[in-house]
This record gives sequence, structure tokens and C-alpha cells, in this order.
Amino acid sequence: MPETSSQNVSMVTCTAPVNIAVIKYWGKRDEELILPINSSLSVTLHQDQLKTTTTVACSRNFQEDRIWLNGKEEDINQPRLQSCLREIRRLARKRRNDEDPNAEITLSHRVHICSVNNFPTAAGLASSAAGYACLVYSLSRLFSVDAELSVVARQGSGSACRSMYGGFVQWKMGERKDGKDSVAEQVAPETHWPELRVLVLVVSADRKPVGSTSGMQTSVQTSELLKHRADHVVPARMDDMIRAIQGQDFATFAELTMKDSNQFHATCLDTFPPIFYLNDISRRVINLVHRYNQHYRETRVAYTFDAGPNAVIYLLQDHVAEFVQTVRHFFPPESNGGEFVKGLSVLSASLPDELIRAISMEPTPRGISYIINTKVGPGPSAVDDQTLHLLGADGLPKKTT
Amino acid sequence: MPETSSQNVSMVTCTAPVNIAVIKYWGKRDEELILPINSSLSVTLHQDQLKTTTTVACSRNFQEDRIWLNGKEEDINQPRLQSCLREIRRLARKRRNDEDPNAEITLSHRVHICSVNNFPTAAGLASSAAGYACLVYSLSRLFSVDAELSVVARQGSGSACRSMYGGFVQWKMGERKDGKDSVAEQVAPETHWPELRVLVLVVSADRKPVGSTSGMQTSVQTSELLKHRADHVVPARMDDMIRAIQGQDFATFAELTMKDSNQFHATCLDTFPPIFYLNDISRRVINLVHRYNQHYRETRVAYTFDAGPNAVIYLLQDHVAEFVQTVRHFFPPESNGGEFVKGLSVLSASLPDELIRAISMEPTPRGISYIINTKVGPGPSAVDDQTLHLLGADGLPKKTT
Repeated sequence: MPETSSQNVSMVTCTAPVNIAVIKYWGKRDEELILPINSSLSVTLHQDQLKTTTTVACSRNFQEDRIWLNGKEEDINQPRLQSCLREIRRLARKRRNDEDPNAEITLSHRVHICSVNNFPTAAGLASSAAGYACLVYSLSRLFSVDAELSVVARQGSGSACRSMYGGFVQWKMGERKDGKDSVAEQVAPETHWPELRVLVLVVSADRKPVGSTSGMQTSVQTSELLKHRADHVVPARMDDMIRAIQGQDFATFAELTMKDSNQFHATCLDTFPPIFYLNDISRRVINLVHRYNQHYRETRVAYTFDAGPNAVIYLLQDHVAEFVQTVRHFFPPESNGGEFVKGLSVLSASLPDELIRAISMEPTPRGISYIINTKVGPGPSAVDDQTLHLLGADGLPKKTT
Repeated sequence: MPETSSQNVSMVTCTAPVNIAVIKYWGKRDEELILPINSSLSVTLHQDQLKTTTTVACSRNFQEDRIWLNGKEEDINQPRLQSCLREIRRLARKRRNDEDPNAEITLSHRVHICSVNNFPTAAGLASSAAGYACLVYSLSRLFSVDAELSVVARQGSGSACRSMYGGFVQWKMGERKDGKDSVAEQVAPETHWPELRVLVLVVSADRKPVGSTSGMQTSVQTSELLKHRADHVVPARMDDMIRAIQGQDFATFAELTMKDSNQFHATCLDTFPPIFYLNDISRRVINLVHRYNQHYRETRVAYTFDAGPNAVIYLLQDHVAEFVQTVRHFFPPESNGGEFVKGLSVLSASLPDELIRAISMEPTPRGISYIINTKVGPGPSAVDDQTLHLLGADGLPKKTT
């Protein structure tokens, strides 16, 4: 239940996680409703390291809907924001009519939205998934909506629907034209595979790549390989991936993850004009991972890349210290830079000489800016502590000092 | 007819061209016979700029088959060399038995082979196509073989079969198990499209990439997209490409060329572990070409990349001067380096400011080492001038001074 302040401002604050797909979403069959051409599957990252926090408020005194993102007021009229607001209000109205005709919050009240990320945009992590998940979750609490929220979040940003759950989450593509069966579903909770760890290798990129919305549109229009992937490759991969996760079969999970990342980037290259998200550093990380695994004759580490050059690495807890040290060796950071590893702490490790020789790569100084060390985490949740609201009693963003 | 020297050494010298595919060959259905999983199509480059010269000699005095490549004796027992020698001898024997039982050159005589390229290996151009084409063509002359030679060259190096003809050449994949119908065929002669020009942009690469033989093997084994490409994409593209060439339709020729290069590299990325031939410079060339075309709202320039980072550019004569100047602007060469453009001479051109602004890329100094400016050329031919033999009367390589 939202609290109501003395000034008749009702307010809710929630947080939501980032997710990283291991079976990639690329291509829509319906641009408006954001319906995908294939199912996808992701791992929800822990909010201790990466999260969005959003406060939503409504009041009869507000003149209009407004939104502030990372300290800056943005245009509330963006179509996708409007989709989410409209859908939530529709669900709320439906519920009121059904069950609760005397609700205290009038749906005609305008909302104020304020949202911040605890990670720099420069990290190149898609923040829209966490952002829309958090918005939809917060609004649902404000308006006491209890429905399938992933359908609403999906209409903000496709992959946002997967950030509505913790752990391992699939987004079933669905078949219906109205998108009602295109929903996210938890495959396994965040407690299911406690040894799994995630490293985000932040690569210093010089250019802004093609945005994913226009990129996937061009891919759907021009890539014959993408169509084959969506229709004939992904369905079997989804089944295999779910089995690998349920059975905690790391080698299979890792191989499928790498293959699917590569295939996604292959379809980008098959797009016309071609789209490139991987750069020479990304490629060096890929080679490093394959040589690392080859040295141990075991798939210990997996990479995946979204629409940018940053690598996300999946591995088991036991191998984190050595692999981080390997990355540090082949991508030596600036000695007077900030901390190289952020997030969960990492033990120090020494590198076997034969590993360094087996990898046999020229080090690339400063190729990787820093690493975020994190793990699988829970879905969105409400923040109880009222002092953490991002909006003040006046409904405006609190001044940060 | 081969000449016979006083020392009973019969000798023939021939030259053969490089070819650059516009519909790519990647993947074999038979490793032994070198039968491809799809048809391909290439442009034969002019030998004034890029050629292999090979002298073959035989004599009763030679003790064994021997080969010298670019001044260094190599192992004659490589299986693919042996395939070509065996096939030529078999064809020669067949012919003798059929028509010419008293031929003066005994097939049991051993051969000496000496071959050189007029372009540096460092240019990263696949020399095996020109090399095997030249070997097979020379041997056929030495042994007076008159048969479908592309079948023999194919068994040395797949793409070598396309270097057996000038102009525009298709390699029909064939259907037979014995490969007899997997042959090269001229689509149009070198005189067909006189305005067409070819620029080889030699990119300074730091690493040796995965060889194409093992690369395509891994692709066939692991890439689901490659199979789809070979079975469902290439057949239609071959038809479209042949029509575009026959109709001198540059825009269609160029678009298909770029799309097919991109799709080939996409299947390399879909290979597991993935294979990368394009580097950041290659990608900048790709972006440059697309922005150049976009500026003129016309497809004036096409890129294609083989198993390495070098770009091969197709364009019409009228646009060479300006495009070369554009490349020089965005990849400024070392001021005290050698000549930037080798081969056919290029007029100087000034760049419109609005073109530079439209391309809007940071210049990358020394990203491209040099450009070879060439055009479509003829197939293999015999060298009449005896002073140009690479082997002396003793059957050993002439000393170069």
C-alpha cells in the first residue's frame, strides 16, 4: 500500500535489477506491442551491484505527468513511457471496477516519476530493462495493480519483462497477436545455483554504436540468417538452456551462452548495412576465454556481449580469483587508476606460468577499464525506508548534496 | 608444345591471375576432392598487378619431383600438390593412350617446379589460387593435356579453379560424388565490363588469422547459419549476381558483393570457437563505404573481404580518383613512406567538404599501408620469351641477382 503524506501525495519507491541474456532477443514481430521473433532467456544480476531505483508519486495537486531520469527531467511523452502509464492505469481501472470501487487514489491523478541508476551510463550496460521494470513495478504498487506485469514492462522495453523476476528468467515469445502470451517466467530462482558468478568487463569504447531498436529493425528487414536463427535455431537452444540451468550443468550453459552471443553478433553482421557491436578488445576477450578453457580442457568461463563492446562473463565462484587475475595480466589497468574490480571482493591469485604461455597474447594496456564482480540476484522489490524516496513531499526530486 | 633444351630438359613457363570472390566459397562437402557446399563467383584480377609465374620442367636426368616457391625449396609431398601432379599425369596418360602413343616426353620423367608471385605475401592476398592455377596450367602445357583443367586446379586449392579463366568466373558446386561436375566456367570475359576497377586496400594486420582450410572445416561442423546460407541463400544470389554482371548493373553487383562478404564473415562468427577476419580497420572501411554511398544516394563503391582484414573495393573508373582520395583522407599514409597507390595510375582529385563532413569519421593514420589499383584481367597464359624461365638449363632455379 502506498503511503499518503500530509500533502496528499502518495508515494512508492522500488528497485529493479539488470538482466543479461544468455539466449538473445533480437528482432520484433510487432513494433508497437514489442513482440519478439524468438523466445529469450536471461540471468538477473544482483542489485547490490547494479540496480535502478524509482520513486513514483501521485497527487491531486500535480498538474501533469513528469519524469526525472538520473537527475534530469525528460520528456514524458515518449511513446513507450506512455504505453506503460496507459497500461498500468487500464489495469488499475479494471481492478477498481471489479473489486475496489472506493479506492483512495484517484486514477485521474497525475504521476511524478524519479529514477536513478547505481551504475554509470558509461558502463554501457543497457539500463532500459532495469528502468522500465522498476517503473512498472513501482506504478503497480502505487495503483495496487496485481496482474501479469511483465506484459506491461515488455511494452516499455522488450528485455525489461525479464527484469520483473529474479534468478533465471525466460521470455516466452508467445503466439497471440495481442501479445497477452508474450510473458516472462522464472525458470529457476536466484538461490538455485549459488556458485554462479558474473563479471562485467567494461571496455573503453570510442564510439556510440547503433541503437538496439533501430538495429534490430534493420536486421529483421535485411538478414536472412536472423530469420533462420529465430525460426530454427533458438527453439532448440531454449530447451537445452533451460535443462542446463535446471541441472546446473555449467559446461553446457557456458557453451550455449557463447554460441548464442556469437550468433546474435553474426546476424548483426549479416544485416545491411552491417552492424558492429564487438570491437578489437571484445575479440581479444573472446580469444582469451577460449584459450583459458582450452588450457584447462574444460569450459570454465563463458562470455556474452549485448549491443556494445562490454563482455559479461559467467563462471563458477572457484574460478573467479584466477580468471580476474588473468584479465588483469592481459589487460593491465592504469597503475594510478581507480580500483580495477568493483562489487564483490576477489581473493588474490597467482597465475601459473603455463597458463600465461598457453594464452599467448600480447597484453593490451587499459583495454578494460574495470570489472564489476556480481552474482545472480532477486527481482524488483519495494523500499520500505521512507527516507530513501527520491521525491520530496512536494513531489519534486530531492536536492542531492 | 614445350621446348626441349640440349640437355633434354623440356620446359614451360606460364602466368596465372588472382581472383576475388563476390559470392564467397566457404565450406567443403568433400575434403579430399575439394567439393564445395555452395557455388561461388569471382572476378579475375589483371596480371599486370597481381600474378603468379611458374616454370615447370621435366627431364630423364631429374631424380625426383621438386618444387621451389618464392625462392625457397618446399616439400613436394604435400597432399594437394601430389593430387595435382597425379591428376595431370593421369590425364596425360589417358590422352597418350588415346591419341599419341609416341609422345616425346615420357610421363615417368620427374618434374621440377619453380614459382614466384609478383606481389608480397605480406599483402595478405591468398596466393594459393593463382599458384595452383598456374601450376596446373603449366603442367598441362608441358604434358600436352587438353582437358577440363579447373577440375584439377580445384584439387590443389578450391578457389584456384576460378583462376583458370579471365573475366567473371563461376565455380559451379556440382552434384556428383566424384566432383567431375564441380567446375569453373566463365560468365563473361575480361572485356565485358571495361569500366570496372578494383582497389586492394592493404591493411596492416598484427596477427596471423586462422587458415581458411581449418577455418571452413570448423564452420561446416559448428555453424547452423552456414548450412542455411549454402542451401537457401547462395543459389538465388548466384542467379542475381550473374544477371547483374551480364547487365553491367553496378548497384546490384555492388550490393550483392557487400552482402555476401558480410554473410561469409557472419558465418565465421557463428563458428565455434568463432573466427574473426575483420579487424577495427576493416570495419572502418566498411563504414566509410556505406557513408560514401549514402552521401551520393547511389551505390558507387562495394567492399569485399576474404579470410583476412584487407578490403577489396569494386567501383567504376569514373569514381576511382575521388574514392582513393577519400581513403587517403581518412587513413592518412606516412608522409615519408613509399607510394600509397601502386598499379594503375590515379588522377588527383579534390574532396568536396560536404563529402568529408558526411562521412564524419576520425582519421586513422597508417590504418591502410597502401592501395593496389587494378582491373579485371585475362586467365592464365604461356610466356613465350625463353629468357623468362625461372629454371635454368640444369633444371635448377636461376640465381637472382
